[in-house]
Amino acid sequence: MKSIGHTVNETHDPQLRSWVESANQPGTDFPIQNLPFGVFRSTSHSRPQLGVAIGDAVLDLRECVQAGLLDGLAAEMANACTAPTLNPLMALPCEQWSELRGRVSELLRVDSSPIVGSRSIMERVFVPMRDAELLLPAEIGDYSDFYASIHHATKVGAMFRPDNPLLPNYKYVPIGYHGRASSIVASGTPVRRPCGQTKDDIQELPTFGPSRRLDYELEVGIFVGPGNWQGEPIPIAEAERHIFGVCLVNDWSARDIQKWEYQPLGPFLSKSFATTISPWVVTMEALAPFRVPALVRPTGDPPPLDYLNDPSDRERGGIDVTLEVWLQTQPMRDRGIEPVRLSRSNLRDMYWTAAQLLTHHTSNGCNVRPGDLLASGTVSGPAKDSRGCLLELTSRGSDPLTLPSGEQRRFLENGDEVILRGYCEGPGFVRIGLGECRGTVLPASAPAY
Amino acid sequence: MKSIGHTVNETHDPQLRSWVESANQPGTDFPIQNLPFGVFRSTSHSRPQLGVAIGDAVLDLRECVQAGLLDGLAAEMANACTAPTLNPLMALPCEQWSELRGRVSELLRVDSSPIVGSRSIMERVFVPMRDAELLLPAEIGDYSDFYASIHHATKVGAMFRPDNPLLPNYKYVPIGYHGRASSIVASGTPVRRPCGQTKDDIQELPTFGPSRRLDYELEVGIFVGPGNWQGEPIPIAEAERHIFGVCLVNDWSARDIQKWEYQPLGPFLSKSFATTISPWVVTMEALAPFRVPALVRPTGDPPPLDYLNDPSDRERGGIDVTLEVWLQTQPMRDRGIEPVRLSRSNLRDMYWTAAQLLTHHTSNGCNVRPGDLLASGTVSGPAKDSRGCLLELTSRGSDPLTLPSGEQRRFLENGDEVILRGYCEGPGFVRIGLGECRGTVLPASAPAY
Repeated sequence: MKSIGHTVNETHDPQLRSWVESANQPGTDFPIQNLPFGVFRSTSHSRPQLGVAIGDAVLDLRECVQAGLLDGLAAEMANACTAPTLNPLMALPCEQWSELRGRVSELLRVDSSPIVGSRSIMERVFVPMRDAELLLPAEIGDYSDFYASIHHATKVGAMFRPDNPLLPNYKYVPIGYHGRASSIVASGTPVRRPCGQTKDDIQELPTFGPSRRLDYELEVGIFVGPGNWQGEPIPIAEAERHIFGVCLVNDWSARDIQKWEYQPLGPFLSKSFATTISPWVVTMEALAPFRVPALVRPTGDPPPLDYLNDPSDRERGGIDVTLEVWLQTQPMRDRGIEPVRLSRSNLRDMYWTAAQLLTHHTSNGCNVRPGDLLASGTVSGPAKDSRGCLLELTSRGSDPLTLPSGEQRRFLENGDEVILRGYCEGPGFVRIGLGECRGTVLPASAPAY
Repeated sequence: MKSIGHTVNETHDPQLRSWVESANQPGTDFPIQNLPFGVFRSTSHSRPQLGVAIGDAVLDLRECVQAGLLDGLAAEMANACTAPTLNPLMALPCEQWSELRGRVSELLRVDSSPIVGSRSIMERVFVPMRDAELLLPAEIGDYSDFYASIHHATKVGAMFRPDNPLLPNYKYVPIGYHGRASSIVASGTPVRRPCGQTKDDIQELPTFGPSRRLDYELEVGIFVGPGNWQGEPIPIAEAERHIFGVCLVNDWSARDIQKWEYQPLGPFLSKSFATTISPWVVTMEALAPFRVPALVRPTGDPPPLDYLNDPSDRERGGIDVTLEVWLQTQPMRDRGIEPVRLSRSNLRDMYWTAAQLLTHHTSNGCNVRPGDLLASGTVSGPAKDSRGCLLELTSRGSDPLTLPSGEQRRFLENGDEVILRGYCEGPGFVRIGLGECRGTVLPASAPAY
C-alpha cells in the first residue's frame, strides 16, 4: 500500500509553542501546528506577498527569504516564496512543501527561533493580521464544483425532482461541473445580488430582474498542487500528492435563476456572479492529524469503481473538519447582536474523498494545473441543523428561520453577512482552524438596458 | 440607435491587392481584406510572437514594431504587439484594433508598402506559414460553451429526452455552461480518446474504459476583448465593442460519458478532455461585410426579453459564415484519398447572436476578461447535410455514414482527423476564411490504476 503522502510529524507536536503569543491562545485558528499559506498586501508592501498565518500575525515569506531566514532551501523554493501568488509553491513536489513547513515551524518555535530577540528582524518579517489585506491565494486557472454530499444531493434533488431525488449515477460518478474562475473573490469582498431570468410556477412568462432567492453554499475548496499532462490521468494512489491544501468556499447561488436555467446543461449564471473563498490555505500536512476513514458506504451501496477505489484512501481519505455557517443581518449589526450560527456540518460526511474527486476529474485525461480549485459541493449532514444552505434549511423557503433579531429568513436579504468557519480538533492534537470566509450582500444594480 | 461598433471601411475594399502574391490568389483564406491575428513560434524566434496571416505568410508584429514599421501607434498598442499572447491587444478599445488593422493593411498594400524593395526588412518581418508553429492565440481565462443552434438543440434533445426535446427555457435563455479552459489546445494537437464511466441501456452497472462514442462538435468561438467589472453587466448595445473576433472550435465530446454523467449538473468529463481551436482570430471588423440580420424568429416564438433585445443587433447581429466539417481516416490517408466533407452549415442560423450570448453571460454581474472564450455550441442547420456533429449526422450511431474508402462511421475511430473550415463570401466583397481547426484522434491510454 502506498503512503497517502502527508503524515503526522514533529510539526504537529501538541507541546510546540510559538513565541508569537497569540498563537498559543486556546481557540486560535492559527497555532504553530497549522501554518496555512496565503497572499497579502500591507501598507509597507503594496505588492502581493506570500505569508503564513501565525496567531494574529502574518509571517512575510518574501522578507524571510531576503533576511536569510530560509537559507538552504532549494532555489526554486526561494523563488516560490517571493512570488506574488501561491501557484509556484503549489507547483513544487509535496516533499518540498513539507520541508518549507518544517523550516517555518522552527522559525516560530519558542525555543529555537533566531528571530526572537531581534526587534528589527521581527518588524521586517511580521505584519499584524489586522494591517494585512488578505487577497486570493492563487491565480485560479480553472474552478470545478462537485456535489459530494449525498445528504445535500438527496434533499435538493427532492425539491427539483420530487419523483427522482437521487439520480442513478450518483453513487458511481463524483458528479461535478465546471465553475467560473473569473468571479472568485477573496473573503470580505461584498457580493452584488445578481439579476437574471426567473419564472416561478405561477408565472406564464419569465421575467428579468434581481434574484429573490439568493442563497449561500457552505463548501470546502481543494487547491491543486502539481498538475498532470493532458491525456495522463492521476491515479487515485497518487492523488493526494497533487493536493496542496484546503480553504472555505461560499458558492453563492441564485436559486430562482438556477431553477429556470439549469436544464439541460447545468447551473450557469445562477452561480457565476460570485464565489467567495477564505484567504488561508491549510495544507494537507497540517490536516494529517485529522484524517479519518472515508465514509463507510451504507449496506447496499455499490463500491467505487476500481479507478476510484484505493485501500489507503478508504483508510485515511476522510478529513474531520467541522464547518459552520453564521449570519449577521443589517438590523442585527445595528442593534449590536452578534452573528448567529445557522448550521454545523462535517467534511467527513462526504460521499467522495478529495482524492476521488481529483482522480475522477483527470480520469478522462483532463489536465489540472497548480492553483486550480476543486470545491466539494455543499457540505450537509443528515441532521436538520447540519444543512449547508438556506434552500435546505428553510425547505426551499417554506419553513423560514427566525433570527435573534426577530427577523425571518427564507433566503438572503441585502445587508446580510454570511460567515463560514471551519476547524479541526481531536484528542492529542491542537485545534487548527481554516479561518473565515465572509461576504455581505449588496443590492442589485439597476438593469443595464 | 447606437452603432454596433464595427463597420465596413477602406480595409475591405475589394480592389485592394497585396504585394504578398499568395494573398491575391482566389480561394485563399487570408487576403488583405482579412488580416486575422494569431500567435506563432518559428525557428528564428522560439518565443511566442504576435502575427497577422497574409496569404501563405505570417507578418511578425513584434518585428514590425522593432523595425519602426508601426511607429506612431500608442505606446500601449506597441506593447500589445510585442506581447506573447493576444490578451493585451484584446484588452484595448476596439477603435485601437481598427487603427492597427488600418496600419497593417497599408503595410501590405501593393501600392503603398514601405516594405517592398527592402529584402532585409522582408526577411525580418515575414515568416512562411509552413515554418511557423501556430499556438493558442490567447491565454484563455474562462471558456463558456453555449447551445445557440435551435436545430442542434432540438435534434439532440430528442435523443436524450424523446418526450421533451426542446425545453421550455430554450427560447428565452441563451443556454450555456462553463467549460474547461486548461484543456483547450491549438489546431494540430493530437487528441487522446478519453476514458470514463459509461452505462448503456442494457448494462446493469457502469464500467470504466475508453469512450466508444467519441464525437466532434463544429462550433465558432468568440474571443472577448475588453472585460467588465464584476457586478456591472455589459448592455446589449455595447456588447460588440467587447468582442475581438472569432475562431473555429471543435468541442470534442464523448457521448457515452455524457449520457451517464450529465444529470443533474450538465456535461463535465465528456467535454473537458480536449477542445481544439483554430489559430487565427478573425476580427469583428474583418467580418463587417458579412453581417446579416439576426435570425428572424418563427411566428409564435417569443421576442427576446428586453435585456437581450436591441434594434441594431436585430439588424446586423448575424454573421454569414459558412462552416464545414471534413474527415480523413487513417485508411484514407494510406490510400491517398482526400478528406471528405461531412457537413456544411452557417453561423447565421443561430437562434442567439454573439452580442446576446455575451450580454446574457454578464447579465448576472459575472465578469469577463480579455481573452475569455465563448463558443456558439454546435452549429447545425435544418438540412441533414448541415448537422454539425456525428450524434446528429448518424442519428446517435443508428444510421452510419459511408466514407469514400468504403469505411463506415457511427462515431470517431482512432486515427481519424477532423478538419473544421469556415469562410465568408458575398457579392461585392473578397472571400475571407477562418483557416482550419484540425485534430487527429489517438488511442486511449491504458487505465491509470
